[in-house]
Amino acid sequence: MSETSVVEARHGKAVRLKAGEAVKVINTHGTQVVDTWALRLPDFHDYMSMPHTRVAVERLIPRQGEYLVTQEREPILLLEEDTTPGIHDTLCAACDAARFRLMGFDDSHRSCAQNFNEALAELGYEFPFVPAPINLFMNIPWTDDGSISFEPTVSKPGDYVVLRAEMDAVVVFSACPQDNLRINGEERVPMPVEVEILPPVAA
Amino acid sequence: MSETSVVEARHGKAVRLKAGEAVKVINTHGTQVVDTWALRLPDFHDYMSMPHTRVAVERLIPRQGEYLVTQEREPILLLEEDTTPGIHDTLCAACDAARFRLMGFDDSHRSCAQNFNEALAELGYEFPFVPAPINLFMNIPWTDDGSISFEPTVSKPGDYVVLRAEMDAVVVFSACPQDNLRINGEERVPMPVEVEILPPVAA
Repeated sequence: MSETSVVEARHGKAVRLKAGEAVKVINTHGTQVVDTWALRLPDFHDYMSMPHTRVAVERLIPRQGEYLVTQEREPILLLEEDTTPGIHDTLCAACDAARFRLMGFDDSHRSCAQNFNEALAELGYEFPFVPAPINLFMNIPWTDDGSISFEPTVSKPGDYVVLRAEMDAVVVFSACPQDNLRINGEERVPMPVEVEILPPVAA
Repeated sequence: MSETSVVEARHGKAVRLKAGEAVKVINTHGTQVVDTWALRLPDFHDYMSMPHTRVAVERLIPRQGEYLVTQEREPILLLEEDTTPGIHDTLCAACDAARFRLMGFDDSHRSCAQNFNEALAELGYEFPFVPAPINLFMNIPWTDDGSISFEPTVSKPGDYVVLRAEMDAVVVFSACPQDNLRINGEERVPMPVEVEILPPVAA
């Protein structure tokens, strides 16, 4: 009843979920950040929004049992299960060509923004811009004075989160290609992750 | 050489700035939150983005002397001067009809999202969605464990910020109509603010 796919290192993957289905995102190696988006079907007129989610949960990071909401403040994904220490990121934009240019790379460096667009295209979709994702497993601590920093993940190999769809949606994942900062682990080597579609919970 | 306008309580106002011009946003009564957006002219293909700005400044709140950047990571506004204690917000979406419905109000309650659209329309513009604004003067403290709360402003009457345009842009302000939370002061009475366009700094 379930279907597992690999999201290759530095690449993206999109999956269609019907309301009630879920997706388990497995940090196979424990070190990998996974930028994640959700777009409402059938026409993407609404989509998951971090600025609205922070207001809804009154937290910088949603916790197990809380809902990620859309621009229209409707629950789109339930963070149903989380075996990590709960460290994810809602603050940072997806990396993109401009980010890597500012770091001295040329435009051949892959990015989460590129992965978002490519993964949607593989399913025959497109979206006019790249919304701010939830960056699963990403460790961006903040200080009392508001500084943030880019630190290695704190997840163990095999840690996972389960995201349950509250409405029909396309969920997009990017195994972040960042290899300049330490966010994907001290080794700075982007790794693959796995996603597994789970059926609705039996009534 | 300068032009001062009132942004009426619960309403919005948009101004066109040429690169080098600035706008001084005066918290006339000290208690008022001002949601602020910037859209790049001539065609709005790029616009100010909080998720990109947080990454650029590596802070939750930009400080005097720092740049607010666009989706394409280009500086669009310089936070040139700030007479407040530096408490603003980049975390929260603009209030909108959905926010007030969730608080028990009907759709006649004004919102910052409505003000954004109305203010743009007054200048003959439109934008397909409401980006996450910088909420000037808004006091959303965070805790070590990531909780956020909605607290009264800490600005004094007459406190101001100066935002200098790094590119031609439309800058949109909303004197936030929130009267259910305490963000616009303990009295919960939305107030007007003033905006003054300043010429380029003489060479």
